[in-house]
Amino acid sequence: MQSTRAVTLAKVPSGVPQPADFAVQSLPLPEVTAGKVLCRAQFLSLDPYLRSVLSGRHLGHSLDVGAVIPGSAVSVVERSAHDDFAVGDLVSGALGWQTLALVDGASLRKLPSAIFPSLAPASTALGVLGMPGLTAWAGITQLAKVTAGDTVLISAALGPVGSSAGQIAKALGARVIGIAGGAQKCAQVVSHFGFDACVDYKSADFLSALKAACPLGVNVYFDNVGGRVLEAALAHLALHARVVLCGLIDQYNADVRPAGPNLGPVIGARATMMGLVVYDFYPMQAAFLAYMQTLLQQHALRWLEDVSHGLESTPAAFCKLMSGGNFGKSLVQL
Amino acid sequence: MQSTRAVTLAKVPSGVPQPADFAVQSLPLPEVTAGKVLCRAQFLSLDPYLRSVLSGRHLGHSLDVGAVIPGSAVSVVERSAHDDFAVGDLVSGALGWQTLALVDGASLRKLPSAIFPSLAPASTALGVLGMPGLTAWAGITQLAKVTAGDTVLISAALGPVGSSAGQIAKALGARVIGIAGGAQKCAQVVSHFGFDACVDYKSADFLSALKAACPLGVNVYFDNVGGRVLEAALAHLALHARVVLCGLIDQYNADVRPAGPNLGPVIGARATMMGLVVYDFYPMQAAFLAYMQTLLQQHALRWLEDVSHGLESTPAAFCKLMSGGNFGKSLVQL
Repeated sequence: MQSTRAVTLAKVPSGVPQPADFAVQSLPLPEVTAGKVLCRAQFLSLDPYLRSVLSGRHLGHSLDVGAVIPGSAVSVVERSAHDDFAVGDLVSGALGWQTLALVDGASLRKLPSAIFPSLAPASTALGVLGMPGLTAWAGITQLAKVTAGDTVLISAALGPVGSSAGQIAKALGARVIGIAGGAQKCAQVVSHFGFDACVDYKSADFLSALKAACPLGVNVYFDNVGGRVLEAALAHLALHARVVLCGLIDQYNADVRPAGPNLGPVIGARATMMGLVVYDFYPMQAAFLAYMQTLLQQHALRWLEDVSHGLESTPAAFCKLMSGGNFGKSLVQL
Repeated sequence: MQSTRAVTLAKVPSGVPQPADFAVQSLPLPEVTAGKVLCRAQFLSLDPYLRSVLSGRHLGHSLDVGAVIPGSAVSVVERSAHDDFAVGDLVSGALGWQTLALVDGASLRKLPSAIFPSLAPASTALGVLGMPGLTAWAGITQLAKVTAGDTVLISAALGPVGSSAGQIAKALGARVIGIAGGAQKCAQVVSHFGFDACVDYKSADFLSALKAACPLGVNVYFDNVGGRVLEAALAHLALHARVVLCGLIDQYNADVRPAGPNLGPVIGARATMMGLVVYDFYPMQAAFLAYMQTLLQQHALRWLEDVSHGLESTPAAFCKLMSGGNFGKSLVQL
């Protein structure tokens, strides 16, 4: 009987997750029956939303102690009993944090050969060309409908969602301001991703620097964090601003949901705030990839990966992500 | 030299306003020069937004101690040096809380004779057929775009904005649930204004009663209050709900802007929150009145007025309004 090595939940984290909240163990795998595909992971995806899953708060998902952490992965098909997949195919899906995964073929997505790996490496199917990129594209083009001349403000700007959102907004002709934690991250947001400016929310002069970066106000704010950064952004909304509410990193580690921002500025600006859940946009995957392919061909799309190595490194890498220590998309290479 | 009797600001209120925050005094009036109109007030309008004006927080307005409170009024033209107005005309405008006002004719609106007083009394030009009614119409038809079958939840449901919003939503075929403070107000929201149900936010079982009233969730929430009522409403949003942020009565008396609701439910529901400022819709006044005229002709529009008598009663009536003691639109009849 074949087995997998997997990262499982040892106990539900309290506050910022600790490596001891996870275990790495061997688990048996069933036979490859009809319709199933056996996948060997190349890259595991570490994403902030998983923190909510661990607490049972992510859109109804919950997780038992002992269960495999249900992250996404890019994998190679090792055995297939599904007509759509052949040995050697590159696939992505909710394969869990484990070396081998046996899943229904219907749950897998084959990485399109027009892009992978000729235009971008397979790992980007978990970042700029995967769920985070789709999130960014949906928020910028489908909800906020960014157009040329907009001033677009983006928090967690060095992360895969924020950096993708900024590049898409730049491609649409917007002026793009990032918010990130620390001078080093801010520098990379500008130099690597081409944002027009980036403001350090950990800096003592955050509020005045934000004001200076957006002298005419913000037409679009893409929020990945919530908390005091959201509150600060709301104070700079231009008339009829659009705010995309995408993530609440600020509270993912909290046991109790904190209060939110005073909404007076939203009324004053006649702003529109829109909740974004990327699952709603999975049917638009093809349109998203076609758009990103164009950017790739124009060399107008970059990415930044924070890669750990080996399954055993996964818990510590996730804990680093959840305390803001990552630089770019968090991945584990197996 | 002619004079007026006026309610003026004695000191900026702290917390809930007190009658001693106001003074009633005689003030001289200048001559009626070209373009000016002298108006004698019939009804003064008491509106919660004035509380923010008193604190200098209403969209940049501020007010000096000693100044006339800049409320609206319905008045009769007593002398006119403006071609559009004749003695005896019924007008409305920002005439201030005073017996006589001398203003530019350009700032006045003549009450249309097709409606006043044949279909509705002049006082309603300050309520259901005035700024509060326009606010309700804009929120329901222009922002939330209520359609038949929607479940529409409305706070401060007995007030002129909430009760107008509910009646317009009913006319559009929606199921309408009110929120009001106290059993007596809730009863009137249902019996007088025809809401399908009304939930008492002061009741101990508010949260469970709200849930029971909206078993399928809320498609539209029209918020006039903010605070814990807004937070409770967000917990019941249906997928793709629209939230109109119209007023924050809950914090108008506060010296410091309080925190707002956690926005996680907005993301989960993929909801849209829209800030409403009625001034943006003044250009649509004719469309609004045409719509309301139709409802009047169908006997599908009611109002409720809480009328005090005499200029001296104005401060106490406003303080009653700002502590939630009013039943319907607060007016002072002179």
